[in-house]
Amino acid sequence: MTARRTGRRPGRPDTRAAILAAARVAFAERGFDAASIRAIATAAGVDPALVHHYFGSKEELFRATVAIPIDPAELLPAVLAAGPDEAGERLVRTFLSVWDSPAGGAAVALLRSAVSNEWTARLVREFLITQVLRRILEHLDLDPAELPLRGALVGSQLIGLAMMRYVIRLEPVASAAPETLVAALAPTIQRYLTGPLTAAPPPKG
Amino acid sequence: MTARRTGRRPGRPDTRAAILAAARVAFAERGFDAASIRAIATAAGVDPALVHHYFGSKEELFRATVAIPIDPAELLPAVLAAGPDEAGERLVRTFLSVWDSPAGGAAVALLRSAVSNEWTARLVREFLITQVLRRILEHLDLDPAELPLRGALVGSQLIGLAMMRYVIRLEPVASAAPETLVAALAPTIQRYLTGPLTAAPPPKG
Repeated sequence: MTARRTGRRPGRPDTRAAILAAARVAFAERGFDAASIRAIATAAGVDPALVHHYFGSKEELFRATVAIPIDPAELLPAVLAAGPDEAGERLVRTFLSVWDSPAGGAAVALLRSAVSNEWTARLVREFLITQVLRRILEHLDLDPAELPLRGALVGSQLIGLAMMRYVIRLEPVASAAPETLVAALAPTIQRYLTGPLTAAPPPKG
Repeated sequence: MTARRTGRRPGRPDTRAAILAAARVAFAERGFDAASIRAIATAAGVDPALVHHYFGSKEELFRATVAIPIDPAELLPAVLAAGPDEAGERLVRTFLSVWDSPAGGAAVALLRSAVSNEWTARLVREFLITQVLRRILEHLDLDPAELPLRGALVGSQLIGLAMMRYVIRLEPVASAAPETLVAALAPTIQRYLTGPLTAAPPPKG
């Protein structure tokens, strides 16, 4: 495919596409933290200033690679505003409000793509860790050694909720009122965030 | 594609394939309960006795359509053997033992397929409800009106676990020891099975 140029808009569509393609490779192969704007610019054959011109910050460039129109950084303060003990409930409510909104279509498409494409799976993994989970967990005053497991458990329940509600569409989860799901899932997410993760002594057998 | 006949094995491969194709349509369109062996045989252009000859029971035919080599009915008694209060922990342990085993490859393939294919998604939904969740929940002495939500919630956490461990491969869930995940997830599954699903009065705002 070749990019078409209309000559009407500033910038060249193929430059933007080249930057995006290089960014996808960099974020998937090296991870969000290790990928640099400079290296992405070099791979795309452009000046780093052009990357900033087209996409702004590294976070914004990353969101463009996964085609997510939502900035988690704008939503997360509300999740944390009522203190650690309500973060679980607020996270479920915020998650549902995004996925139930028109922007949710992009999230469902990303989830479908992650399942069939290893690179997209890596991008989703990086997005979950660096843009969502880490930003919540770093505010909760927890043992740093526990954060990766807590984050992955939160992710497992929320991704599972998305699978059931939007992909497999298992009733009554598929069409339940958001508050029904908030009530059912909030204690789960709260425990994964701040509660005990090890069980009482296991039963014999 | 045409089926090849070797002449070595009893039965004709194309008959078996025709029955399987008809069964996939019937289970996806009508659901497991409403689909009948008789209607599947008619759609495949064979005698119902041939369906039983090739596949045995309706359950076995259904498992063949989703290519799952495991019979949940054989595993579930162990989940329930220690009573309702340990069903959550035992269900997580059994789930992981199946998905971590060689048979887990078929389950991951089915999950991937369900995400990209609406018919497979319907078959997975039917499989979850009729072959797994219903068989557990009917032994737990619960309010029948709550069973669908409880089942779907259990499914959401287990599917999410499978997504994180086997598809998106988010660490440390991807390579955690099974017992670490059992300890973390058992209280969740137990509450979805037998605990309260509605929250304390919601906070204002």
